[in-house]
Amino acid sequence: MNLRGAGEGTLIRKIREKFARFEGGSVPIGIGDDAAVFDFPPGHSAVFCSDLVAENTHFIRNLHPPDSIGYKAVAVNVSDVGAMGGVPMHFLISLAAPGNLDFAWVENFYDGVERACGDFNVSLLGGDSSSADLIFVDVSMVGRVSSGRAIRRSGARPGDGIYVTGVLGSSALGLELLKAGQLSNPAVKRHFYPEPRHRVGAAVAGHASAMIDVSDGLSTDLPHLLEESKVSARIYKDRLPAAPGVQDHHLLHGGEEYELLITAPDLPKTVEGVPLTRIGEIIESGLENQLFLIDGASESVLSPSGWQHFRA
Amino acid sequence: MNLRGAGEGTLIRKIREKFARFEGGSVPIGIGDDAAVFDFPPGHSAVFCSDLVAENTHFIRNLHPPDSIGYKAVAVNVSDVGAMGGVPMHFLISLAAPGNLDFAWVENFYDGVERACGDFNVSLLGGDSSSADLIFVDVSMVGRVSSGRAIRRSGARPGDGIYVTGVLGSSALGLELLKAGQLSNPAVKRHFYPEPRHRVGAAVAGHASAMIDVSDGLSTDLPHLLEESKVSARIYKDRLPAAPGVQDHHLLHGGEEYELLITAPDLPKTVEGVPLTRIGEIIESGLENQLFLIDGASESVLSPSGWQHFRA
Repeated sequence: MNLRGAGEGTLIRKIREKFARFEGGSVPIGIGDDAAVFDFPPGHSAVFCSDLVAENTHFIRNLHPPDSIGYKAVAVNVSDVGAMGGVPMHFLISLAAPGNLDFAWVENFYDGVERACGDFNVSLLGGDSSSADLIFVDVSMVGRVSSGRAIRRSGARPGDGIYVTGVLGSSALGLELLKAGQLSNPAVKRHFYPEPRHRVGAAVAGHASAMIDVSDGLSTDLPHLLEESKVSARIYKDRLPAAPGVQDHHLLHGGEEYELLITAPDLPKTVEGVPLTRIGEIIESGLENQLFLIDGASESVLSPSGWQHFRA
Repeated sequence: MNLRGAGEGTLIRKIREKFARFEGGSVPIGIGDDAAVFDFPPGHSAVFCSDLVAENTHFIRNLHPPDSIGYKAVAVNVSDVGAMGGVPMHFLISLAAPGNLDFAWVENFYDGVERACGDFNVSLLGGDSSSADLIFVDVSMVGRVSSGRAIRRSGARPGDGIYVTGVLGSSALGLELLKAGQLSNPAVKRHFYPEPRHRVGAAVAGHASAMIDVSDGLSTDLPHLLEESKVSARIYKDRLPAAPGVQDHHLLHGGEEYELLITAPDLPKTVEGVPLTRIGEIIESGLENQLFLIDGASESVLSPSGWQHFRA
């Protein structure tokens, strides 16, 4: 059976049945009306973000398992909420897909979404569906943060340390191995099912001066933070926490890592069970906000070489 | 210049500049961080919805002006928030488009979004952008409703009147005329720039028993309300408020109208300057929830014949 045979009504009914159990007492109206309605805790501000996933740009239909696409679409939004110091709450999914797509693809996609709901303690409250010539997925998420405690990209100050959660490079390595058919390497699993660091993000709110998640690569995302904060930075190559087997280009430029880059005067070595590595420090800017890479005795300007949309 | 030439950085910078003036005092963090942060008024619940727009399904690139696509993508979400009795507040846009798309297309698209911000008193707080083989737009919106006052589809009771705002059929007629090259007819403008009835929706919260917006057509959307409310309905063909020049299939089955269907014991003839027409009444269900169309002396069951995704 394909999507055309099942029809939109069947799709929505199956989604309602699958996700009803995640709706808590703070959701008066969930999936199935013109919009969802949920209650928002007092003393908090709303954190609001979206991330889209386009076929042939973010995934290849015969290479990526459908459940990994669903899981990752939720995980990347959880990561964004976490990068503000927020706690993720609810999300919507807009799914466009061809009518001839196997309905089993769609069901497996939502299996991944369901697993993400459990892993990240978030609930699906609705969305939209449509036919289209290619598969598109867009997830929008609302989270909460104690009012005035959100962490911007713009707060880094000279003297702050630069910290990164976990390890870098595995997602980019995983994608290379996937394309080469080497599916058994754990980096492939990491590429399919990223582990957002939202609990770390929420835990350092109040201590961190700035934060961003690594979605396009260290060499691209750290400069975003520098630009917003109007500062420069020095990082040390031998301090970068490399995942097993990764090469320099994975480590420095690999995207879809979903580790957090955090600036703060001082942070502990572990937060919420996740290792934090101090990879460098914020320095004052000269004429431009630049990122310097120290490699032994040599020092160079590290230019953004991660993922850039529309350039590919 | 095309999107590839401009790059994602230029796109985001232009969007930030264009929309900064819509961010009010209740938005501590707008466009340009990992997520936006906004404050939520006490005593209210959040209304949360999304609607996607896919190339070749919702619009044809050489037929629909880009600004109409941007305007409509916002308007349909405003309509969904209104159909819950809510007041729209903030939204995100995820835009996927080919790298070879003319940058002027994108700028004109955001002109339409900007006009919608002014017309509906909503603000763009962020989103996502990506390359893709076709254009794909998804808007997600958050609004507010006084806690406990949201209007579901499920509250209609036998004896309630069925009301519709404005007139029906013009968007479907407009699409037909557009395809025939007859652009001067006002129905085409209506198809391009729909007028959501969110102010009516918010005004009848507290009086209405159920509400839904007409996005897929009267014969499709009223049955959704009947099914959720577990009731049937009788509507009178000669009472349906027809737009000038429309035929039966536009009137009964035409989608993208964004008028509201409201059930209530009694409603005034005009709300917020918009005419309300009583087109029939809710009756008890027999074995199934059915919609009966009374046309002079004849009565028939009206089957859903509006837009169905994946069936086209």
